[in-house]
Amino acid sequence: MSTGSASRERTWVDVPAGSPFGLDNLPYGVVRTSAGHHVVTAIGDQVVDLSAASAFGVLPDPDGLLAGPSLNPLLAAGRPQWTQVRREIVGLLTDQARAASTQRCLLDARDVVHVLPWELGDYVDFYSCEQHATNLGRILRPNTEPLNSNWKQLPVGYHGRAGTVVVSGTHVVRPSGLRPSGDDGAEYGLTRRLDIEAEIGFVVGTPSPLGRRVPTSAFRAHVFGVVLVNDWSARDIQAFEYVPLGPFLGKSFATSVSPWIVPLEALEHARIAPPQQDPQPAGYLRSVEDWGLDITLQVRINGEIVSRPPFAGMYWTPDQQLAHMTANGAGLRTGDLFASGTVSGERQDQRGSLIELTWNGESPLRLADGTERAFLTDGDTVSITATTRGDLQPHIGFGEVAGTVVPAR
Amino acid sequence: MSTGSASRERTWVDVPAGSPFGLDNLPYGVVRTSAGHHVVTAIGDQVVDLSAASAFGVLPDPDGLLAGPSLNPLLAAGRPQWTQVRREIVGLLTDQARAASTQRCLLDARDVVHVLPWELGDYVDFYSCEQHATNLGRILRPNTEPLNSNWKQLPVGYHGRAGTVVVSGTHVVRPSGLRPSGDDGAEYGLTRRLDIEAEIGFVVGTPSPLGRRVPTSAFRAHVFGVVLVNDWSARDIQAFEYVPLGPFLGKSFATSVSPWIVPLEALEHARIAPPQQDPQPAGYLRSVEDWGLDITLQVRINGEIVSRPPFAGMYWTPDQQLAHMTANGAGLRTGDLFASGTVSGERQDQRGSLIELTWNGESPLRLADGTERAFLTDGDTVSITATTRGDLQPHIGFGEVAGTVVPAR
Repeated sequence: MSTGSASRERTWVDVPAGSPFGLDNLPYGVVRTSAGHHVVTAIGDQVVDLSAASAFGVLPDPDGLLAGPSLNPLLAAGRPQWTQVRREIVGLLTDQARAASTQRCLLDARDVVHVLPWELGDYVDFYSCEQHATNLGRILRPNTEPLNSNWKQLPVGYHGRAGTVVVSGTHVVRPSGLRPSGDDGAEYGLTRRLDIEAEIGFVVGTPSPLGRRVPTSAFRAHVFGVVLVNDWSARDIQAFEYVPLGPFLGKSFATSVSPWIVPLEALEHARIAPPQQDPQPAGYLRSVEDWGLDITLQVRINGEIVSRPPFAGMYWTPDQQLAHMTANGAGLRTGDLFASGTVSGERQDQRGSLIELTWNGESPLRLADGTERAFLTDGDTVSITATTRGDLQPHIGFGEVAGTVVPAR
Repeated sequence: MSTGSASRERTWVDVPAGSPFGLDNLPYGVVRTSAGHHVVTAIGDQVVDLSAASAFGVLPDPDGLLAGPSLNPLLAAGRPQWTQVRREIVGLLTDQARAASTQRCLLDARDVVHVLPWELGDYVDFYSCEQHATNLGRILRPNTEPLNSNWKQLPVGYHGRAGTVVVSGTHVVRPSGLRPSGDDGAEYGLTRRLDIEAEIGFVVGTPSPLGRRVPTSAFRAHVFGVVLVNDWSARDIQAFEYVPLGPFLGKSFATSVSPWIVPLEALEHARIAPPQQDPQPAGYLRSVEDWGLDITLQVRINGEIVSRPPFAGMYWTPDQQLAHMTANGAGLRTGDLFASGTVSGERQDQRGSLIELTWNGESPLRLADGTERAFLTDGDTVSITATTRGDLQPHIGFGEVAGTVVPAR
């Protein structure tokens, strides 16, 4: 038996060496079982049915936070309870005396069917990567300053469609819409520029009342954990519609998230200082803790890695995004999701969208099978994974957010 | 006893002549009672506790659609059930034999406390009034074509914050944010340009699956009814943030809705042909029924009517908005709200926002008390009411959406 983690405690579960799901991770998900939707965690190659463990009495859960069918009761419970529940789960998986009775709650990770693990409130998508915003500016507005004048003064963001956030594995139907055609004209048809955006999302647990700001210092009190996000985008539809009120149908057809929410506690070792901000932002945007995160994404098309975007370089950090989102007194609800915006590094092979990777289709990607991609083709499967700094501690896995493009019906 | 309506049936409830809440209306709301949140309708000056009537067995409700605490079970039930429930309520209020036992379910409308009557899914706000969009274009971009080139080809819209949609009567805390200052700069502070937007909103009942479009012809099948909307706006915050992803904090601090959802059936007499569309829109946007609505809004500041925006002139109609919103396969959820965008007529006293009424503050309104308003002052109460064409049938009332501006804490 190995722990697969640097935790001082050891689990009785057989965890393969180098597993991204050691005792230090313990992400939360929800799977479909014959008894309904159950809350689970991952350990090694197995999944622990926490709802069952709670029902069987081997895992203390006096408030029913793990009963299912979603993570919302746990999300709503707040930081002290999050810490307590995590401690109970570590206890369960390290207590040899409970090993036999807990065995029946273990499932092979390959056999479970994940569902969207929580009910969303609002979904906000930011645009907080300087390299991405610069690339987009250069591609879409070639003869102007690539960054708009507001970009370094606030984390630009907008509301997306919460109702079309789907769990990894959900097929993405190629959307139709009005695409630019001729001078200022448009024609209706299938998108020809179906793209991805590799992002990291933050799931809000503790709500906040209307009319009250949430300071950057309250990030830990409100944010439960992290998911991987693929913000599918139809670039042609978006290009025609987005002035002056922003993206709408170019984004709202689907946003995929990973099946696991990795709790903030598991990312403590990945916290780093973010890039220096110049100019210094307004007071309400100043951080009191470093919430840069040393996480590297891996973007695959049909299994082949095409990019490794580094989250460490993000200009605006999630504590700043949280403070910004509520600076006008907007309340938070349990289940709100806010995503970072596309993550792109300086190198070509670190860009988090095809519009950047292929420079708006001018330089298509050549895949290992010899085919080229300017944008996505029907049948393509895109998956995004991520790892934290492997050099300091064993890496933490996030699972994957995957989706296959299918033709319109 | 009078019916206060042109319905062929007569109610045993005493309805004052000219009441906007006759048997032809029967809007749905939810009020706070000692027994929880109950579903109600309005008749004359009274409110009927439908949850109680159902519990007492005087109103058939076999599926518990009226049990509370929200309208969502009714919204999700679909058009045939909506028709049946409405028929049962008319039956209850016209059946003399049940009058005595129903009396104990009647409450004085002045005594009830309304809550938000349904749980929202997503909130979309359109921008579908040509006069409003033209006014904004002239004010904000004086030396260009007032309408963007996409405006007449699709109903421009964006997602707003569903979590800050509040019921009429909720105070609106003056928001802060980054306002433009100097050349491309900004400073943080209280908004100086707090505005309103008078709109009509449409509440979705029947959901639709991801990947499937909803045609204009399915409007009646999906849309349950109508609310009045005040989309509060901080013009200075919005001006600094909105390029390129659209409005965010300038809108997300509060959106107020009326406590009543008026069912579509009650608006049949108000349906009219909308303005001619030129150019003809894409096929998916063509209407098969007229969903122009002859509704006049009344906007009051501190009780004084300052505008009467005519909804009849809206360029894009709600069936087109519904088809557009789903043209990319985005699914609908029970409780989704989509609003028309600000309603403005051609005359100065028909404009639905202060930025238009005062031409961006250049020509302040002079109120009856001698004070002037460029934008809203702390303590101001804004209310919006509406009536349908009174000349053909007795008018239908929508209640009011009201809110008072309070200073930031």
